[in-house]
Amino acid sequence: MSASTFTLYGDRRSGNCLKIVYAADWLGLVYSFVDIDIMTGESRTPEFLAVNPAGQVPAVDFGGGKTLAQSNAVLLFLAEHSALLPQDPFLRAKVNEWLFWEQYSHEPYVSVCRFHMVYQGKTASEREAWRVERAEAALDHMEAHLAGKSFFVGEALSVADIALLAYTRLAGEGGFDLSRRPNLTTWITRCETALELA
Amino acid sequence: MSASTFTLYGDRRSGNCLKIVYAADWLGLVYSFVDIDIMTGESRTPEFLAVNPAGQVPAVDFGGGKTLAQSNAVLLFLAEHSALLPQDPFLRAKVNEWLFWEQYSHEPYVSVCRFHMVYQGKTASEREAWRVERAEAALDHMEAHLAGKSFFVGEALSVADIALLAYTRLAGEGGFDLSRRPNLTTWITRCETALELA
Repeated sequence: MSASTFTLYGDRRSGNCLKIVYAADWLGLVYSFVDIDIMTGESRTPEFLAVNPAGQVPAVDFGGGKTLAQSNAVLLFLAEHSALLPQDPFLRAKVNEWLFWEQYSHEPYVSVCRFHMVYQGKTASEREAWRVERAEAALDHMEAHLAGKSFFVGEALSVADIALLAYTRLAGEGGFDLSRRPNLTTWITRCETALELA
Repeated sequence: MSASTFTLYGDRRSGNCLKIVYAADWLGLVYSFVDIDIMTGESRTPEFLAVNPAGQVPAVDFGGGKTLAQSNAVLLFLAEHSALLPQDPFLRAKVNEWLFWEQYSHEPYVSVCRFHMVYQGKTASEREAWRVERAEAALDHMEAHLAGKSFFVGEALSVADIALLAYTRLAGEGGFDLSRRPNLTTWITRCETALELA
């Protein structure tokens, strides 16, 4: 099975989906994108649940019954044997550490605040205070880690950067001010340049 | 660097820490366990933050400045080149899919309900209704996946099972009734036998 041709089911406003777009485009992979509107139940249809029984986007279909969900698991699979994943076992472990941290300690706060504003139309002041606090802490943790570093792991662009970039570059849409975090804003520009994003 | 000798900083009541104990013991690894009481601030001391700047247990110190956090990242690192991780790239991707699902869609619900009861002394009826609902959905998703299967991926015990087992076998302490989920209870016993747990 080749990972170089697949169907990506996703939502183009979702950072979790955009991660895969960023990586796949950088790797020059050939794929088709099927829009799934999570706000109108399209991630709960029998057709979609056949691709991902968990009912979450993104989900990828490689054909032949091989489907894969969880954005960071897809990133790791697509990036295998590429420059986006270190060969050194310990550096790979550090990439994994950041991928799990992103899903547990960043996405549920930074992304969900943005979800409430972008998808549900709330204002910044209507965000949940406890969630905002944890999101700010996550952004501060990234800012501290990036001191003296170009990228998150091993001084090279990896899927750790791509996973963290997706929602961090959109954090302003969740009411967060990145301008007081110079390491973070410099890193975002560095990643956007490396990935040839607009 | 060998992964076979390390110091594990953790809390023996934490499923995220027990995952590493289960895997390391099954693999016959040599390690020392340092108790960190997260309820008395021991995960926020300068000494601990030097091991894991994110201030979370478990964290592992392999010596030589090599530290690693995030339970499932540690599992993947310890299990490399062992029977707990498939060699087939797609099966490895499916293991990763379950590891990320566990941290995003299972642990924040099943484990946090247990945290409220075991660590904070709340009763089952004092649990948050929205969190209970998501925890029940996660347990139902596992029950459905296990139909006709012995283990989560590739019909062999893997770190996916270990990661999911840790908090699922303790779900009763979070007020959940597993008895109406026969696939899940059979799988728990199967894993406990394979891992030689009490």
